[in-house]
Amino acid sequence: MTIKDIARMSGVSISTVSRVLNNRPDVSPEVRRRVLAVVEDHNYIPNNSARDLVRTRSDSVGVVVRGAANLFFAEVLKTVTREIDRRGYTTVMRQIGSSEDEIKEGAVLEREKKLRGLLFLGGRFDYTPGEVALLNVPFVCCSYTNCFGSLREENFASVSIDDRAAACRAVEHLIGLGHRRIAVVAPSRNDRSISELRYLGYLAALEGAGLPADPALVEETGGSFEMEDAYTAVERLLQRGTEFTAVFTLSDTMAMAAIKALTDHGRRVPEDCSVVGIDGIPLSAYTIPTLTTLVQPAEEMGRSSVRILLDLVEGTDGPRHILAEPRLRQGASAAPAAGDGGRTNPTERE
Amino acid sequence: MTIKDIARMSGVSISTVSRVLNNRPDVSPEVRRRVLAVVEDHNYIPNNSARDLVRTRSDSVGVVVRGAANLFFAEVLKTVTREIDRRGYTTVMRQIGSSEDEIKEGAVLEREKKLRGLLFLGGRFDYTPGEVALLNVPFVCCSYTNCFGSLREENFASVSIDDRAAACRAVEHLIGLGHRRIAVVAPSRNDRSISELRYLGYLAALEGAGLPADPALVEETGGSFEMEDAYTAVERLLQRGTEFTAVFTLSDTMAMAAIKALTDHGRRVPEDCSVVGIDGIPLSAYTIPTLTTLVQPAEEMGRSSVRILLDLVEGTDGPRHILAEPRLRQGASAAPAAGDGGRTNPTERE
Repeated sequence: MTIKDIARMSGVSISTVSRVLNNRPDVSPEVRRRVLAVVEDHNYIPNNSARDLVRTRSDSVGVVVRGAANLFFAEVLKTVTREIDRRGYTTVMRQIGSSEDEIKEGAVLEREKKLRGLLFLGGRFDYTPGEVALLNVPFVCCSYTNCFGSLREENFASVSIDDRAAACRAVEHLIGLGHRRIAVVAPSRNDRSISELRYLGYLAALEGAGLPADPALVEETGGSFEMEDAYTAVERLLQRGTEFTAVFTLSDTMAMAAIKALTDHGRRVPEDCSVVGIDGIPLSAYTIPTLTTLVQPAEEMGRSSVRILLDLVEGTDGPRHILAEPRLRQGASAAPAAGDGGRTNPTERE
Repeated sequence: MTIKDIARMSGVSISTVSRVLNNRPDVSPEVRRRVLAVVEDHNYIPNNSARDLVRTRSDSVGVVVRGAANLFFAEVLKTVTREIDRRGYTTVMRQIGSSEDEIKEGAVLEREKKLRGLLFLGGRFDYTPGEVALLNVPFVCCSYTNCFGSLREENFASVSIDDRAAACRAVEHLIGLGHRRIAVVAPSRNDRSISELRYLGYLAALEGAGLPADPALVEETGGSFEMEDAYTAVERLLQRGTEFTAVFTLSDTMAMAAIKALTDHGRRVPEDCSVVGIDGIPLSAYTIPTLTTLVQPAEEMGRSSVRILLDLVEGTDGPRHILAEPRLRQGASAAPAAGDGGRTNPTERE
């Protein structure tokens, strides 16, 4: 599949296809739509090596961080900027909000700064070929994949953990400790992204253990990973009066906020309620109690992302997708469930 | 004072002075030394506006982050990159270790990337004119000043808190709660930098209250702000058997590590020992107990730094130095001292 085929199938000239793929303004909306439909139907990704050779060489790599408050990203970023330096490139950075469009931001940055490649630290899991066709340089999805999207494996690069499996393991750990009423605090159940995946992992663990999924145990934060939103979500759970003996949260900082909310409302962690997170940021080893969490290998993920991206930039072959292995780190925030199935009032416990 | 005067006083040509100031290799070490001596003696800072106009325009601003593990910097960085974007510039970022030389790194980055300005997030407090003459673009010191150095006020820009006064206030808060035996965990007592300043603030508070400065209450971490080094420093304090009822640490993450170490060794915070930090990172509101800390206004400091820097880049006049006001946020980690003056064994308390 070449740009010629796209032109033939869309019934336009090659230069028109090129203008569409380069997101130039001098194309009518109707033609743009027609070309992108063909691009999307055929999962076409433009080959940029020729274009790269003729443009002025730059040594800039764009790093777009989606969700600046995410401490796991801060951790990965340390390695990413060091590795980019080490390979002789320069980091051009943009931080965007967790609801902003990283592809659009990346595409603008790429054109403005003549980037050689783009590293997205956090992003959506549902890209379409037409969407990533906006990018004229190699890119790597760091900490996410395309499981809700329609990209072909060979048309993008990614470094991530299996978020669904990691969440499932975290919840299975709680089930293994005897917990049956496990609440979940999630940014969203259906964001077609990391939050939905981890929520699905929670459901899978319950199903695997033959436990019912009780909607009263689910609390969403409206898309936010912020501590204050996790805190109030746990407060809502408590106010509802639903019984639960454990809380699974989708990040370490949310877990810290959950422990704080439970403590502030008279629930001891882990005696009255266990808490488990995902991330394994350095701080999580210093919380009281020490957090039980699924540790993502931040340094390895940062290093692999830069290696894959720069190998693509330099035309070296190598694997395009790396699934990093999280590991369960048992802290002190998860403990065996008491035999009573979890009373809401801790003072009733012996 | 112009480049002509420097040439005359050093007995070399104007182009030689220019080569020295631009850090070109084609100057003998002897001549370089002679020129820099004159530069330093006269506190000469090159005027770059003419040079800026003839060089190819770029819209890149360098951000050099010194100490990537610092969560306060991560907080400031959020605002810094947003504000740089908002003003239509691009962030070129480099993260360096807390013992690396930000000026040298900044100078290299400036030449490689044709930067318009440099924002140093963290750095030494003891620059000399000869040293900053390496930089051909405006720069701003974010979160530090030059109190141990020899720059003239008009020859650099800074946004910081008064670190000595902030530390003094933190310790005065403990003294106000009745504490007399106050330990300090500091990266260093004499780094001519932030750690020394805050340590001096600690001493000033003791002196102001007529309390003796006991060396047995001081524990250094060998220059590190890392949590694990703060943790082991507190362990050393405890093992020494010195009596203390409060610990002052030079950052929030160090304070969290201190609370963890105290708790792990059977000391309850704040019942047996109070802990106070400096920074006010968002996380510090979610620790157990909530941290009492001197909050640095991270967002304001990030915004002011970018404004000052870009005003200098664009030739707009304005204040070059901003002293931000920290505020004491009373959490639950500092409580009134018990009347006994602080036994080392908490079980002896009634």
